[in-house]
Order: sequence, then structure tokens, then C-alpha cells
Amino acid sequence: MKFEIKNRDAAGRICRFYTKHGKVTTPTLLPVINPNRMIITPKEMKRLFGTEMVITNSYIIHKDEKLKELAIEKGVHNLIDFDGSIMTDSGTFQSYKYRDIKIDPLEIVEFQRDIGSDVGTILDVFGTPEETEKKAKEGIQETIKRAKQSMEVKGNMILACTVQGSVYPNLRKKCAEKLSEINADFFPIGGVVPLMESQRYSDLTKCILASKKGLNPSRPVHLFGAGHPMIFPLAVALGCDFFDSSAYVKYANDGRMLFPEGTKKLEDLDEIPCFCPICIKVTSSELKKMKKSERIKQMAKHNLYVSFAELKKIRCAILEGNLWELVERRAHSNPYLLEAMKELRKKENKKWLEHFEPIYKNKALFYTGSQTFHRPILYRCHKRLINRYIFSSNSAVILPEGEKPYSQYYSEVIREIYAKRNNLEIIVNTHIGPVPIKLDEMYPFAQSIFPENIDMETEENGEKIFNKFMSGKKLIFWNEKRSLKKSNKSQKKITENMDLLRISAVADMQFGKNASKALFCGKIKINKSKKTGKIRNIYCNEKHILSMRAGDGMFTLKIKGAKMLHNFFKYPKYRVTVQEDAVPFVKDGKSVFAKFVIDCDEGLRPYDECLIVNKDDDLIATGRCLLNRLEMSSFNFGMAVKTREHID
Amino acid sequence: MKFEIKNRDAAGRICRFYTKHGKVTTPTLLPVINPNRMIITPKEMKRLFGTEMVITNSYIIHKDEKLKELAIEKGVHNLIDFDGSIMTDSGTFQSYKYRDIKIDPLEIVEFQRDIGSDVGTILDVFGTPEETEKKAKEGIQETIKRAKQSMEVKGNMILACTVQGSVYPNLRKKCAEKLSEINADFFPIGGVVPLMESQRYSDLTKCILASKKGLNPSRPVHLFGAGHPMIFPLAVALGCDFFDSSAYVKYANDGRMLFPEGTKKLEDLDEIPCFCPICIKVTSSELKKMKKSERIKQMAKHNLYVSFAELKKIRCAILEGNLWELVERRAHSNPYLLEAMKELRKKENKKWLEHFEPIYKNKALFYTGSQTFHRPILYRCHKRLINRYIFSSNSAVILPEGEKPYSQYYSEVIREIYAKRNNLEIIVNTHIGPVPIKLDEMYPFAQSIFPENIDMETEENGEKIFNKFMSGKKLIFWNEKRSLKKSNKSQKKITENMDLLRISAVADMQFGKNASKALFCGKIKINKSKKTGKIRNIYCNEKHILSMRAGDGMFTLKIKGAKMLHNFFKYPKYRVTVQEDAVPFVKDGKSVFAKFVIDCDEGLRPYDECLIVNKDDDLIATGRCLLNRLEMSSFNFGMAVKTREHID
Repeated sequence: MKFEIKNRDAAGRICRFYTKHGKVTTPTLLPVINPNRMIITPKEMKRLFGTEMVITNSYIIHKDEKLKELAIEKGVHNLIDFDGSIMTDSGTFQSYKYRDIKIDPLEIVEFQRDIGSDVGTILDVFGTPEETEKKAKEGIQETIKRAKQSMEVKGNMILACTVQGSVYPNLRKKCAEKLSEINADFFPIGGVVPLMESQRYSDLTKCILASKKGLNPSRPVHLFGAGHPMIFPLAVALGCDFFDSSAYVKYANDGRMLFPEGTKKLEDLDEIPCFCPICIKVTSSELKKMKKSERIKQMAKHNLYVSFAELKKIRCAILEGNLWELVERRAHSNPYLLEAMKELRKKENKKWLEHFEPIYKNKALFYTGSQTFHRPILYRCHKRLINRYIFSSNSAVILPEGEKPYSQYYSEVIREIYAKRNNLEIIVNTHIGPVPIKLDEMYPFAQSIFPENIDMETEENGEKIFNKFMSGKKLIFWNEKRSLKKSNKSQKKITENMDLLRISAVADMQFGKNASKALFCGKIKINKSKKTGKIRNIYCNEKHILSMRAGDGMFTLKIKGAKMLHNFFKYPKYRVTVQEDAVPFVKDGKSVFAKFVIDCDEGLRPYDECLIVNKDDDLIATGRCLLNRLEMSSFNFGMAVKTREHID
Repeated sequence: MKFEIKNRDAAGRICRFYTKHGKVTTPTLLPVINPNRMIITPKEMKRLFGTEMVITNSYIIHKDEKLKELAIEKGVHNLIDFDGSIMTDSGTFQSYKYRDIKIDPLEIVEFQRDIGSDVGTILDVFGTPEETEKKAKEGIQETIKRAKQSMEVKGNMILACTVQGSVYPNLRKKCAEKLSEINADFFPIGGVVPLMESQRYSDLTKCILASKKGLNPSRPVHLFGAGHPMIFPLAVALGCDFFDSSAYVKYANDGRMLFPEGTKKLEDLDEIPCFCPICIKVTSSELKKMKKSERIKQMAKHNLYVSFAELKKIRCAILEGNLWELVERRAHSNPYLLEAMKELRKKENKKWLEHFEPIYKNKALFYTGSQTFHRPILYRCHKRLINRYIFSSNSAVILPEGEKPYSQYYSEVIREIYAKRNNLEIIVNTHIGPVPIKLDEMYPFAQSIFPENIDMETEENGEKIFNKFMSGKKLIFWNEKRSLKKSNKSQKKITENMDLLRISAVADMQFGKNASKALFCGKIKINKSKKTGKIRNIYCNEKHILSMRAGDGMFTLKIKGAKMLHNFFKYPKYRVTVQEDAVPFVKDGKSVFAKFVIDCDEGLRPYDECLIVNKDDDLIATGRCLLNRLEMSSFNFGMAVKTREHID
């Protein structure tokens, strides 16, 4: 099973998944193909929507003698005439829906293997939302037992072992852990269709989070039965890679059209609010008058256009680093989704999500409402402020919210303050809490857009962080009328002082408390961009140790800076330890692949700068992590660290 | 000039606009056609996007001798080869942009008339956002002067007279009033491009609102230069009917693609998050590699697909009655738009918007965030609760928020309470304030979906209304543990009591305080649906006076009920007074057209039930208003009241 992360945002990821039949880019949707009745053929789906993988039902094939024979003889790819990847389901959902169905759990796995399914599924025990915890527990025990047995017979088929556990997070997590222990290949999250049908998105969120917390992060996760694009963004942000859906045809049968914000009945529509290739060609009245079978086909196509487009939007948001914005935006279109977002305000969930959150993003952070405050990136910033920031004085001048970057907006004031006393702290009391002036160019403090008037909830949350951060400090509230005494300290001195304070504060925030002491221990020279006046390169005793990125105001680590951090901080801080075999490649400038990683600092986050060392903790190179610790130790495929500079 | 409202929501409307060249459905977008360089021809636009009307620039035509001659000789429709409606601009924007341009204000109007423009535009004075109030005032005086002179020479061309006034709401309103006084046909809101360019959407909102408040509501309103779909929903909700745009080509030239949530640069895109007929056919890398002129053309088409689709979504939302939801949703995608929404929280704006807000909607109200509380429909509900609701007791039992409808959720409790004392008030303290149990089936109390946990701001706002509504009352807080004394009053009696309380409360809320006294003054019989158990028809002394609509729990008025209201309430309450000429038509069951309305009650709102009377206040019929008072007295085209039942 090959599965690798190519890009990421939130706890979501763009991955490549490889089967015998080719490469699949996730997150993606597997349209459900009914081998008895194909409204749209898989081939046509590939042509129209770029569908790389579909799902069909081995139980349906198995129970029909003719289909069964054909499938065994010619394989499932021939049966449904598709040369892309095929996943098969096992009949679990059918046994939940129609109860007394006889399927042998092992026979159905063997059958899937024999018909050449790329990804087969165990016959798990569907845990309904209503069942008792006891019943749910028995269910997962049976599921785990079957998973173990199925792993024995799967052959070289990728086997999907479904996480169950009803609405009990502890059971979900436990089931996930057990399935990870047996080293299953692929993890559907099952038993969630009834939750989605009744729009219980809070419970769905709990189920996904609990499952993900227990799962091996290097395996694909599939939200079983999720076919409404409305929940794709949230599910992806929580770490789901695959969706599957018969919704496109079920809804079409029922005269309903899917949209990212919800469902619309064709009968209610005077005109169709859509520009997909179907809706551009027919009017709603033409569609209403069409022959039923043709109408269903056209509506099914619309439903798939919409669903695949939503996945494009999600992948695009991951690349731009604004997946949370898409999630929040979608949540504002449905009160039940909005309710579900409250789960993400819980500390234990923020804490978990923070591990997967990239250090910086390509686009500015946009405020969408009170939920924005609870994004993992802000949770991290606030935590780091409290734990890593070193105050240069016990007295702080507090400036009110202003335009960004604050150091430009308040440049006169800052000059006055520093002229008077160059170690006074200057803190802007912003919408999202305190921002020390030294950090005002660091992501996301400068790279964020908030409305001028913030909502009450965010204001209160900002205030709380402010009070926590400033506790024990003497606060001097600046106001325009109050003018500080003039001094004749030179402008140059003030700027130099400010620059040094800035790079120290950023280093502490980015690398940890006292990193500034490790890095700026000699004669410091700061190079600035002639065009923008922004800090570019930093030299310590004539050695180039750091560069500051213009986009996010954070550092990239040069090998000479890496050496200083390596000397100052003990193992395992900032380290990614690689196998001896990998050392020559890294020294040759090649990236570190996940399978060569022995260990890594648990403080590292995606896109963090890191030190690459061998097992004896000799520094080899510096680079940028793509994965966090949990992932580095789980993935055995794909890149873990992009090497930047190595020891000569 | 023919312009009529066909459907409406918020202060937005779906209208038909008629020119010499046909019918145009608004809200719509007029793509800007440069006669020198057509990236996409108007004919192709009609075919691809259903474009019914375009805009081109008479100044550009006029200054080019060849184009000028051709236009005069063959007309502008021939010049750009389009048989739909054409609006022409006058060069105002050019004189703002390139300063020293010589155009004679009257000559350019006459020129537009002579080339057969369907809608010509005066040469107004562009008011920039930076200019002083004094300068802006001089500007509008000159604009008004030119408008007056232009009206003299326009011939039978529809003349657009542009509202200016920079960012000064009082000037905007005054300019709008003056232009309305001279009976201009069509009102662009001008001078707003610099505001949109710098995303000053709060100021834009102020400008639109101030202009609309001063304008004759029966004329089309055009937001001049607005071409980004991001602001269409808000602008329509505030009453704009037309947009025009060269954005589709300007952005395309610049490598940027329009989306309803913002703009994306092609160079940033790995894949295009879109399924329009263009983006389905080409990948982003193919588009990047295309010949520049071809790429621009394809991107311009994408931009128009997106823009026209957003207008479809808006029209669809108007029909569904959820335009505010679309507006709020879009606002959550851009902090500047979110900021602009704050304007709609101001009391004077809510008050104005409430006049245009329909009485009921086709779809349930969805909560999107704290802004939802400020929707005009809730403002109206709260105002009516305070002003119209009659308490049956000074003591009220307060129930906490529950499932809807509350009377079902709390049926046991209600029975207990009424069994004890049948005049106790029962109030549910909901997320959006107090809901008397008698009104729990009335729109939007039952027909709304809120998250289980509401945000702090809404909670506080709800609390405020609750306290105001309950002031002076004795509150008994119900809790589950507290069981009221059992009584042996019969279930039937309790239900009858509840039904009578319900219809009285709804009548007071819908028609005004004491309407219940007018309507329920005899022996009341209530007919219920056998299927749902809901109230259907109400008889007073054997006469059918009202029906309760299942969808929104409000009344439709039968002619016998109308008579009772007519007897009880003095002129002009609930009346729409029609000219004598119209009386026979109304008696024949025909609808009332706006031009026949002499006067109407200023309390009537769109979709309100009303009494149709002649000038002597004789009751002729009852019906449903499509327009409010301001509109009825301004429109001279289209329907004002849909007659339901008339006097024999």
C-alpha cells in the first residue's frame, strides 16, 4: 500500500494513493457503481469528471449468480468496464439496512480478492447511533476479530478495515487503535450514514475526531457513505481522504439536486442556480418535462459535477492554506454544521488539530466569524506567546488595534517609546489578543484580515488571552493625547535596537524559548531588502545563520544557524534522526524520505525548520518538515523532510 | 419606461424591465462592450450566458469619427451587432479617470438618443470618496442641473440619471430625491468604483442605502461599475437591479479569475476550482500555456459564467425567500463584507429595510451567525410582540428553549399549566427572544433552524428583547422537577382554550392590536386538518372568516373576515384604495394594478393581507399585497394587489 502526503492544510491533506490500477489523488469521491444498473458508466465518469476510482458492491455481485461468475472469470474491472482503481464494499450496509442477510465474513473478503478488487472491505458490524454502549462494544470486538481474520486472507489486495463504535468516542478511538495495531491498509469510518441522514453533524464530527485520534496517520481514511458535498470540507479538514456516494443517483431519483450549501428540489426551481455543463444546456422547465430516466441521468451528472468541483475547491484551499476558511464558510450555510464547529472549540480537539496545522500558509488568514478565533493556528500562537515569549521589561505600553503592519502604523509612537526607554515592551491589544510589536510581521499577525468591529465573542476571547499574557506586568495604556518625552537618541540606534528585538522574539516563537540566545550570541549583522526595508539575512560573527521570509516573517534556517541550535539545544530538540543508509543521500542534497526516519522531535510541526541528524546526533543538514512526529514514524512512503542545506 | 416587480425578498426584487428591444429580467449584469475590441461579442454572450442587455460607451463611440458616423447612420445596435437592449454610458467615468476630457453634457445625451440607445446616461459629475462635502455638494448640484436639462432632450430614450454625493449619505439621499423629483427613468448609483476597488464595502453600503432611501422605488437602480459577483447578493438585497462590468475582461487581462467568494490568480492555481463549461474543458496548466489572447478570452468567459450564475443564485434565493442567508453566507467569506453587514444592524436601516421585507417566506429561516438576529423579519417580529401582543395574564410561565414546534415539545407541560389556570401566559425563552406559546407555529418562530448552542452576541440580544417584552410581568420559571398540581379539567376544554388563544394572538400580530376583537366577536368554530391536527378554517357565527396557512401559520383573509376588520378599524387601516375605473375589474376577480391605486395604509407590507376599497371606503375585495405603500404610490406598471375574494 503506497500512500503519501503531497500537500496539507488543517488536518487535511492532498495525497497520492497508488493501486495496481494507477494513481489516485485524494481527497476524492468514489461514485458508487451498481453493476446491475449504471446510470452513468465509470468510463463516462472518468471522461466527464476525471474520476480516478469508483466503488462497487461485492455483496451485490456475489449474490447474483451471473454477475458472480462473470466477475470471477473476468475480474471486477471487466465487469464494470473500468481500467481505473476499484474499491469494493462488503455488504455491511446492506446487512444493516435489510437485516437478515447471510454473508460469510471471510468468504466475502476472499471473493473481493478473487475478483481483483484494488481495495476490498471487511464485513464489519454496523454500529447504529441508537445502540447501547455495551452493544456497540460487542460490535467493535466482532469487527476487530473479523478484521484480523480478513488480513490473513486478503492476499495482495488493499484491505479496508472499518472503524465502528456507534456514537461513543472512546469506542471509536479504541476500535481505531486496534485496527491500526493489526496494520490494516485503509480505514473507512463506518456507521455514520444515519448521523448524516438526520444532520447530526456534531456527532459525526465527534466520530471522525475520535477515530482519527486512534488511527495510524499514514493510512487513507474514508468517510463511508458520505456523498453530500456539504460535509466534504469539514471532513477533509479533520483528515478524511475518501468519500463514496450513491447520493448522486439517489438524490436524482428523488428529484433533488446537490449543491455545496445544501439540496434543492427541482420542482421548486424556476431557474437552476448552477453553471455546470448540464445546467448550462437545459432550463429547469425542460428538465422537468424530460423523460424520467433521462432526467435522472442529467441530474445525476449535475450532482457529480457539483461534488467533484467541491473537491477541487477543497484541494485548492489546501494549496492556498485556507481550508479552515472554506470549512467555516460552508458551516455558515447550515445551522447543524455551525453547531458541529463547536466541537472544534474544545481544548482537547484544538490540541490534537494543532499537531497537523502547518507553521505558515500561502494566503492571509481571513476572519469569517467567531469560530475563526478557535483555529489551531491561533491556538498555537497564543500558546507560544504564553510559553515562549520573553518579556524585555516588566512594564508594557499597550496600543489599541490599528492598521497592519502595526510597526508601520505606530512607527512614530514606537520611536518615541524606544527613545525614552529601549527595553519597554510594546503590545498591541488586537482583535485576536496581544501582539508584541516585535512579532507584528510574523504570520499570522500581519497576514490576517479582520473586520474593523469584531463580534463580542471574539472580543472576549481576545481579552482573556490578553489578560493571561500580561498578568503580573505593569501596563501603560497609550493614548494619542499623551506624548512621551522627546529624546535625542539617534534614529539609527532605535532601529537597530528594534531589529534585534524583532529577530530575537521571532526566533523564540519559532524555535522555542531561548533559541534567540543560541542564535544571537556573537556580533549580529542584519541585512535588509533595499526595496521593502524588511529584514532579509542575519549574520552572526560574519556567518549567515538565518533568512527571514518576506511572506510570513519567519526564518529559514541556514546550516550555520542549524549548528548553533544543535550545539545549544540537547537531543531531540528540532531533530529529525535518519538511518545511516540515508546519510549519503541527504549529504547529496536529497530529501529525507519517511521510511528512513528513525525518530523526530515531538515539537516539530508541518513546514517547521528542522535539524537532520544521524543516530549519533551528528548534524547532517537542515530542512523543512512536511510531516509531524506521529506521521514521520508511521509513513513508510513519501517525503518527510525537504533538505535545504547540508554539512560540507 | 416599463418596470414591474414580479417577486421579492429582503429589499431585493425580481423585475421585468421593458425597452424598445425587449424584456430584461433583473437583477442582471450588463457586460461592458468595447466597440473597438470585443473579446466576446454580445451575440455570443446572449447564446452562452443568456445576456439580455449590454452596456457600451457613447463617449468612446463619439470621439472616434468612424464609429460615430457608423453609429449615427446605422444605430448602436448595428454597430455592436446586438438585437437585445443596449445601455450607453456617457464618459463620466472617463472624465474622472483621465481628467481633462471635453464632452458637452447635452451633446452626449442627444448623441445617445440619436444612435438609438435603449437607455442613455447623463454626463454626471463623478464624486470621488476623498473630496470634501462642499466639493461633493457642488458636484451633485451640477449633476442635478445636467439631469434636468438632459430630460428635456432625451426624446423617447430611457434616461439614466446618476446619483452622486461621494461618501456623504445626506448628499446621496438629497441627490436621489432631486433626481426622483424630475421623474428620471433609471437611477445608477455612481462614484462607487473607488470604494469597491479598495474594498470599502461599509461605505458602499452606506452609499447604496442613502441613495435608495431618496429614490423613487418604482425605478430601476443600477450599481455603476459593480462587476465583482462578491458584492451582488448584498447589493441586490439593498435594492439594486442592475450591475455592469468590464471586470470580466479587465480581470482576465490581468490573469485573474472571478469567484463568488473572491478572486484567484491563475498562476496560483494547480487546478481550477470550478466546473463551468470553460474550466471543465481546460486544465490550469493548459490555460497557462495558451496564447495570451485566447487565454484572456477563455478566462473572460469563465468570469461571465461565474457572474451570471451568481445572479441566478440570487434570483433563486429571492424566490425561496432566503436572500438574506445568501448575503450573510457571502459576507462570511470576506472580512470587509462582514464589516459592511454591521451597517444593517443600525436601527434606522433595519427600520427602512423592514418596509420591504415580505411577511412570510417559502423556506425556513436558517441561522448563519450573529448577523441573523438583525434580519428585518426578526426586527419586525420583536417590534410587533412589543406593540401588538396582548397578555392574557400578568403572570407568565417561562420555558427554556426546546424543539420546534414548542407546543408539541411542551404539550404535557402546557396541559398541566392550563389545567391549573387557563389564562397563564406561557413564554418560551428562545435563542431569538421570547416566543409566546400561542405564536409558536407562526413564521418564523416554527420555521427557523438555529444551532443548539447559540453565540454569545445573539444570546445577549435575545435576552434584551426578552426583558423588554416581559417587563412588569411576574415570571414563573418552569423546570422539569417542578410538577404542577393535577386538575381534572377535560383535555377537550384545554385544547379549545389553547386554539382560541392561538388564533387571537396570531390575528393581533398579523393585523394589529385588537384585530382579534374585531374578528372573534361571535360564536367561533375552528376547523382542523384531520391529517396534521393543525388549525385550518375559522368561522365566526357560521361565517368563514379566516384560513390559517399550514406553511407559515398566518391567516389568509376571507371576504367575511375582511368585512369585520373593515367595520372595526377606521380608514386607512389595512386599506388599499383604488380608482373608480378599477372597481369593476376588481369585482370581476382581476388583480389591482399599481397605476389604479390612489392610496394605501402605510402599515401594509409585501405579501400582507389587505382590504381593497373604493375612494368612499366601500369594501370591494380582499387580497394579498405585492407592494408596500411607497411602492404602490410610485409604480405605474405591474401588479399591486392580487385579489383573492370580492364582494358579491
